[in-house]
Amino acid sequence: MSKERHDMNGLDAFFAPRSVAVIGASATPGKAGNQVLVNIKANGYAGQVHPVNPRGGEIYGWPVAKTIADLPDGIDLAVIVLPADTTAQALRDCAGKGVRAAVLAAGGFAEVGDEGLALQTEIESVIRDTGIRILGPNTSGHTSTPVGFTSGFFPLGKLPRGRISYIAQTGNFATHTMRYIMSTEPFGVARVIGLGNKIDLDEGEALDYLGADDETDAIMMYLESFKNPARFLEVARRVTRTKPVILLKGGVSEEGGQAAVAHTAALAADGRIVNGALRQAGIVQIDRYTQLIQVAKALSMVAPPLGNRVGFIGPSGAILVTMTDLCRRLGLAVPAVEEPTRARLQEISPSYLRMRNPVDIWGSALMHGFGYAYEQALEVLLKDPNVDSVVVILMLVADAAGRPSLDFIADLAARYPHKPVMVSFSGEVDQFQATRGPLEARGIPCFALMEEPFEVLEVLWRYRQMKERP
Amino acid sequence: MSKERHDMNGLDAFFAPRSVAVIGASATPGKAGNQVLVNIKANGYAGQVHPVNPRGGEIYGWPVAKTIADLPDGIDLAVIVLPADTTAQALRDCAGKGVRAAVLAAGGFAEVGDEGLALQTEIESVIRDTGIRILGPNTSGHTSTPVGFTSGFFPLGKLPRGRISYIAQTGNFATHTMRYIMSTEPFGVARVIGLGNKIDLDEGEALDYLGADDETDAIMMYLESFKNPARFLEVARRVTRTKPVILLKGGVSEEGGQAAVAHTAALAADGRIVNGALRQAGIVQIDRYTQLIQVAKALSMVAPPLGNRVGFIGPSGAILVTMTDLCRRLGLAVPAVEEPTRARLQEISPSYLRMRNPVDIWGSALMHGFGYAYEQALEVLLKDPNVDSVVVILMLVADAAGRPSLDFIADLAARYPHKPVMVSFSGEVDQFQATRGPLEARGIPCFALMEEPFEVLEVLWRYRQMKERP
Repeated sequence: MSKERHDMNGLDAFFAPRSVAVIGASATPGKAGNQVLVNIKANGYAGQVHPVNPRGGEIYGWPVAKTIADLPDGIDLAVIVLPADTTAQALRDCAGKGVRAAVLAAGGFAEVGDEGLALQTEIESVIRDTGIRILGPNTSGHTSTPVGFTSGFFPLGKLPRGRISYIAQTGNFATHTMRYIMSTEPFGVARVIGLGNKIDLDEGEALDYLGADDETDAIMMYLESFKNPARFLEVARRVTRTKPVILLKGGVSEEGGQAAVAHTAALAADGRIVNGALRQAGIVQIDRYTQLIQVAKALSMVAPPLGNRVGFIGPSGAILVTMTDLCRRLGLAVPAVEEPTRARLQEISPSYLRMRNPVDIWGSALMHGFGYAYEQALEVLLKDPNVDSVVVILMLVADAAGRPSLDFIADLAARYPHKPVMVSFSGEVDQFQATRGPLEARGIPCFALMEEPFEVLEVLWRYRQMKERP
Repeated sequence: MSKERHDMNGLDAFFAPRSVAVIGASATPGKAGNQVLVNIKANGYAGQVHPVNPRGGEIYGWPVAKTIADLPDGIDLAVIVLPADTTAQALRDCAGKGVRAAVLAAGGFAEVGDEGLALQTEIESVIRDTGIRILGPNTSGHTSTPVGFTSGFFPLGKLPRGRISYIAQTGNFATHTMRYIMSTEPFGVARVIGLGNKIDLDEGEALDYLGADDETDAIMMYLESFKNPARFLEVARRVTRTKPVILLKGGVSEEGGQAAVAHTAALAADGRIVNGALRQAGIVQIDRYTQLIQVAKALSMVAPPLGNRVGFIGPSGAILVTMTDLCRRLGLAVPAVEEPTRARLQEISPSYLRMRNPVDIWGSALMHGFGYAYEQALEVLLKDPNVDSVVVILMLVADAAGRPSLDFIADLAARYPHKPVMVSFSGEVDQFQATRGPLEARGIPCFALMEEPFEVLEVLWRYRQMKERP
């Protein structure tokens, strides 16, 4: 076996496999054992693919082995898409052929009670006997876009490559939530790991791998339990010095915990780590599922702000007032600006307005047009030493005097790379949809609801404090 | 003068005017004095319209009076679109011609400091001298769809008629926020009141009028101050017995309060009413601007639930877990269902799953198809005596085996009118957009983010408690 195969923790077999067997492969569209192959093909995986099915033949040009015994020796990864009760034997057979790692797609193990637990115990004995590494069971797979590979069995198409990675104790990021991201968000992913029942590979080891991963800039996590809390915290303390680790813990309420038992057999009570310990380890916790997507987008585009002082611009006093209230609830400051900033804002505004931060742009826009007014205001806010980040709440309506070019937002933001600029809007949704594409292509995160950029900035600010903790 | 003109508080002159003068009317597109006329025309107002402009002539078929003195006597309403410093004289002239009420569009009064305050004092003296009723100044107008009238000067087009009314200490609901609603939400409005500086007509009187208004089912409010707190509370205590009154208070933080002073000269400290008093008066407070829209949509479609027990269905364990956690944070219960409900859910699911509320629909959907699985689950949840409302989190992806008809959601919801049913989704955004139109047309509120139906239900549940308070 070559040197590269002996990486620190064996996870390269999952994330950069040179050869893959699909046990339970099928030529029948709609079956999971078929969809795995469709996904592998769609993602342009360049390694060897060995479908296994008793019927033999060929699927999508790949010759099908009739049994695991017929496979060549030393395959890196097996994706086992079989019912729970035949998975253990298949796994033992794979290990016998020198397969280094396996993804176990089947559900029906510990999460369903005693009988499943017995099957899971059997898998554990194979691991002990053979040293094979396991992802799952009860996982909807994993993805590694740098090598164009996925073990997912949900229709996905080609996953967009990017520098955000997910570690999730749920299959959602290999199924419908990934489809959500692909349908509406501009960011791509590097590695996506659906941990499933964590019989072997757990959150700590996965985090360790991604912490050292050159392809990963930020790590988003969803967990319902901690398999090895001490190890997880130790890894997190290290990783969070260089990369944001954003965590949504599921099952934090008693009723949510019961739902988690039904979901992944996670016993929250056993694995509970107090929030203080997570915070000390540099983990940033969130509590909204949709923030697993919104924060990921922001992290894919901007650096976290150096402070909590937000400058913002909006087309309405009520918006400025309510977003200021929101900032205070979130622990963000809405600072007074320096005199030159204030003077310039006053200069471009009707004299009867008293300009300040937040910037009510309406009067200036009426005088000078929206494009000019927003550009001048954004520039002085970015220049102001009291301001760490800027939120631009655009006014977008179809029949304003033509939509001005918004290139200035990305142009100005590029000159102040340490000050994140985020955009939201008031006005018409289709105008916003037309606006956000070009802005996000240039690295300006755009959000459909006015509250969202502030809520995301709060998370980024907490990460900044984590990163710089003593 | 006819009997109808002597309604209790004179506000019919604003909301059902038989004749309107527009002072400062203009034939020049883009000018506020032109846009008012464009809006009146677009909304199909059937009363008399009298533009006033020194040039005379005709605008959009309406003969233009050169001066206010040239107007006929006894006009119900004047919309005065003049600079602040000429507004007072115009108002006095209007009152001299027997005009009963006026909308003052100009800004530049108390909200801008001493000089503006002097102008505002002058307006006050006209009110005292003549008894004319005033909306504003510093208002972007009001709307009354039952008579097809608006005094707004922002391009609006025809406003959709509905049974939600807004009272706002901001112009947003006559400008870009109304455009937002029109661009993406299915509900219409009855009356929209931009209070402006509240020199005369204030939140209490407006609420009183809408409380008795046959066209209004629910009242959404945005306020930065209370002009007459005692009167407001007294009115609210009465109105909230029959109609939901949902309030976002702006300027609740110190910094937000400063922004409010800049915005509407509202002195939050003077007018602050403790939240407890508002609650005792039956007012439901919210703290997200976007909920002024989401809650309005829900109120336009469903009755508030009779209890806080939510049944819900989703395509993923992690979604069920995190939404259960959210329910607990919001004070909503996720109840155990009765045995027949559980048995039926089990019957349609793989035997290895332990079915319960919330309902993990994935296994059943794989066995029976998504349409059947969701329909069966929704029906038993609605039937269950432990469930007061149901949230359906659809899985929507383009290449699932065709999108099943979702008519069953509205069909079932119609059989349980006291149990609100709301929809959200996981999957692809364009699939959701295609789905929500038909559902919302049948009275099922749909929300783009999974958290939103729960957050809205929490507000509706608080209203139910308010309504039924002793």
